[in-house]
Amino acid sequence: MESGGFFKSNVMNVAKSIKKTGKDDPRRVIHSLKVGLALTLVSLFYYSRPLYDGFGVAGMWAVLTVVVVFEFTVGGTLSKGLNRGCATLLAGALGVGAQHLATAFGKKGEPIALGALLFILVDDRTFLRFFPRIKARYDYGVVIFILTFSLVTVSGFRVNEILELAEQRLLTILIGGATCMVVSILVCPVWAGQELHNLVASNIQKLANYLEGFQAEYFHCIQDKQKSKSSLQGYKSVLGSKASEESLGNLARWEPGHGGFRLRHPWKQYLKLGALARECAYKIETLNTYLNPEIQECMELKCKFEEPCKIMSSESSKALKAISSSMKTMTAPSAAKCHIENSKTATKLLKVALETISLEDAQLRAIIPVATIASILEEITKTVEKVYDSASELSNLAHFKNVESNVSPEKQPPHLLHRGMVNPLVVDIANNNNNNNNNNKNNIDQIEINIHDIISSESPEKVENAPPKSCAENAQSNSCAVVNIIVCH
Amino acid sequence: MESGGFFKSNVMNVAKSIKKTGKDDPRRVIHSLKVGLALTLVSLFYYSRPLYDGFGVAGMWAVLTVVVVFEFTVGGTLSKGLNRGCATLLAGALGVGAQHLATAFGKKGEPIALGALLFILVDDRTFLRFFPRIKARYDYGVVIFILTFSLVTVSGFRVNEILELAEQRLLTILIGGATCMVVSILVCPVWAGQELHNLVASNIQKLANYLEGFQAEYFHCIQDKQKSKSSLQGYKSVLGSKASEESLGNLARWEPGHGGFRLRHPWKQYLKLGALARECAYKIETLNTYLNPEIQECMELKCKFEEPCKIMSSESSKALKAISSSMKTMTAPSAAKCHIENSKTATKLLKVALETISLEDAQLRAIIPVATIASILEEITKTVEKVYDSASELSNLAHFKNVESNVSPEKQPPHLLHRGMVNPLVVDIANNNNNNNNNNKNNIDQIEINIHDIISSESPEKVENAPPKSCAENAQSNSCAVVNIIVCH
Repeated sequence: MESGGFFKSNVMNVAKSIKKTGKDDPRRVIHSLKVGLALTLVSLFYYSRPLYDGFGVAGMWAVLTVVVVFEFTVGGTLSKGLNRGCATLLAGALGVGAQHLATAFGKKGEPIALGALLFILVDDRTFLRFFPRIKARYDYGVVIFILTFSLVTVSGFRVNEILELAEQRLLTILIGGATCMVVSILVCPVWAGQELHNLVASNIQKLANYLEGFQAEYFHCIQDKQKSKSSLQGYKSVLGSKASEESLGNLARWEPGHGGFRLRHPWKQYLKLGALARECAYKIETLNTYLNPEIQECMELKCKFEEPCKIMSSESSKALKAISSSMKTMTAPSAAKCHIENSKTATKLLKVALETISLEDAQLRAIIPVATIASILEEITKTVEKVYDSASELSNLAHFKNVESNVSPEKQPPHLLHRGMVNPLVVDIANNNNNNNNNNKNNIDQIEINIHDIISSESPEKVENAPPKSCAENAQSNSCAVVNIIVCH
Repeated sequence: MESGGFFKSNVMNVAKSIKKTGKDDPRRVIHSLKVGLALTLVSLFYYSRPLYDGFGVAGMWAVLTVVVVFEFTVGGTLSKGLNRGCATLLAGALGVGAQHLATAFGKKGEPIALGALLFILVDDRTFLRFFPRIKARYDYGVVIFILTFSLVTVSGFRVNEILELAEQRLLTILIGGATCMVVSILVCPVWAGQELHNLVASNIQKLANYLEGFQAEYFHCIQDKQKSKSSLQGYKSVLGSKASEESLGNLARWEPGHGGFRLRHPWKQYLKLGALARECAYKIETLNTYLNPEIQECMELKCKFEEPCKIMSSESSKALKAISSSMKTMTAPSAAKCHIENSKTATKLLKVALETISLEDAQLRAIIPVATIASILEEITKTVEKVYDSASELSNLAHFKNVESNVSPEKQPPHLLHRGMVNPLVVDIANNNNNNNNNNKNNIDQIEINIHDIISSESPEKVENAPPKSCAENAQSNSCAVVNIIVCH
């Protein structure tokens, strides 16, 4: 009874696991059916007598080709199929040549000459596999080359009908390979290029989700704790995405044009963009260590940094989201431009805040976590700009549609500097710093002051004198304009 | 003439590239020779007439097995060989069973029944490949299973001598596989386990090199600029080491005991250790962005933080070096314990410095880069401790030698707390902070005060009043004790 129960629960577990794997990506189930279809199609050649008479035992090679060549993506199937075909052709020709060469050594010398030749060629080819570029693109071809060359030189020594054998093998491989390619392309194709495109876009989306969740979590303006927790974990998968991006990039080269992708789509640019997204993820990983409620923080400084930090993270998040969604629609990421500008403005705001805050009462120990978060957020903002530049380059290279002219001015995201919401105004009431006087002046000059944009409903002094507790409420009621007017004492 | 020159330079480039690949890892050249040797050995079976009469065309399968099974590492060869053997046996048996079953459907129904069965089984197996654990360990076995099952059901329909064919194939695969394994193990073996062990140890070493180089670069006590530059780049390869560690971990399971590694060596622990090393590398990547000479820094604060930061980075670096070298000698990483303690003491020092520094004149803008570096260094110190814990666990699980008792006390690295060099002494001369009074008291209580350890050659006040410029010189003349005595005003 007990072992029966154990068996039953085990079977249930396996069934659940299979169901989950199928549910996670239904294309996996379809892929299995596709392989079965291709194999059955090729078997038909073998089962029907007239074809069998034509091909003989070589028909087995067609089956073998299907099993080995059929991959999940079209690029994978094409890469393996073409590698296999070309390598067989080349190795077959070289093998026949080697045979002719070996006969010159007489009956006794022939096996020795062939053995030596085999040894030399196999060595060279095996060594070739250690070159990264060859390993990535032609690894399978090199294996098949060695295989075929060995088989031809070895079998040729016995059979004496190499050319006929070669013809048979090439034809059957052609049938097997062609079946794979046709089934792979026509029945629910999975394009490696499309996969790479989606992977990079979704990675950028994950980074955006983190920054959005970070802002909510750190500044406690959080509605759904559970949702935020999951959005704060998503970026982890970006950290280790290098290998899959590179392998998809290599497979995508083999694919013909499909959907919005032409034959010579700039796949290399996706790898660059992916590397920048990972660079951003590394910084987020460090930022994440400071998202610890146990760290003692200077509330006053946190309150003063709240607005620039919120803007940096939310605008960077919006920029990344705009880049990701423009990739999904294959349009130029022009919608992100405005958010990039806003986040840059926020770094200026942060600089102004840094210039002017006096921390006479604050403890350095409590300042550091807040300062570190602000500093890392600034670095993330810089990386997001690099991501934007790289995405723009991709859009140019891949001739993505330019939607800038199609969007009406009202629909464009608001530009913070023109909305008059967070434009930094530095009112130099009294400059009692003696040493840093020159520095201050220079930095203030760099900041655009546009006094007409300021909402003048509340006086700057009032904000400065407001108790620190009210800053969260201030932010929630969207009266950002006031918070951002900084007064230099 | 010109095309000749072009051809010549191309050939030269290829030759240089080949030479470099061989020089980088001479085992690659040896691997190529090993494959050639195995292939030639197997070909001998085929060339010599008595063996040929025994095996027939099936001899080709032995050659095929060598080409496909022979991998760079012993684990890879064993994994592929065993997968191939077991899958062939299992699929052969199932194939024969399927044949018997199909005959029940009569002459006309047989091909259809076989086709349906093939379709169902191939589908299941293809789907199985999507499970990560199966994909990692048995992927090749599943492919060979599909291959053999297809071949047996297809060929059986025609040949009628399946059992004889199966015996031949198994025997030839056995010969091919056994040759591969013997050559792979006996001739200059490359063990995947040893590779994984070395990879993780060298990754930890690279992190140590960075921290050492960082200290030299950031605090300008640098002798050899070129050497430092290269040590600051090495950690980058750690960031993307996940894929190779995991694949080596999977291959290492297949290997028998070798060198210091037993059959059931805790390979999983290496993956955990590697993940922690990567976690450390992510933080170093962020730290590296602040190593920018253009950033405006508060020299006063940098000077005050210099000692704790130097100790944190140098002791973390020494701890990592000790862990790495203890791994190389397969001993317990007890030598690192002392450095871990020292780096923890340095974080306490940093906290004391934070409690007591008053920054009335300093600009927050110039404080932030220094504070961020100190804060990230503290996080790195924590991660290094985790690396140490994980390395200790590995040492326990793998029964590494315990060298603690063999080393004489004089040879052990000096314990900072007992050397009396950097023990923080907090002299609370006058506490004029009103709000933070309680906080201060609590934190100071946490710090061990050991007044007997202090070198009393110089008075604390002298250091406090010393001009900031002299701090670098102070540090160089190793009068660390003085720098670390911090006075609370």
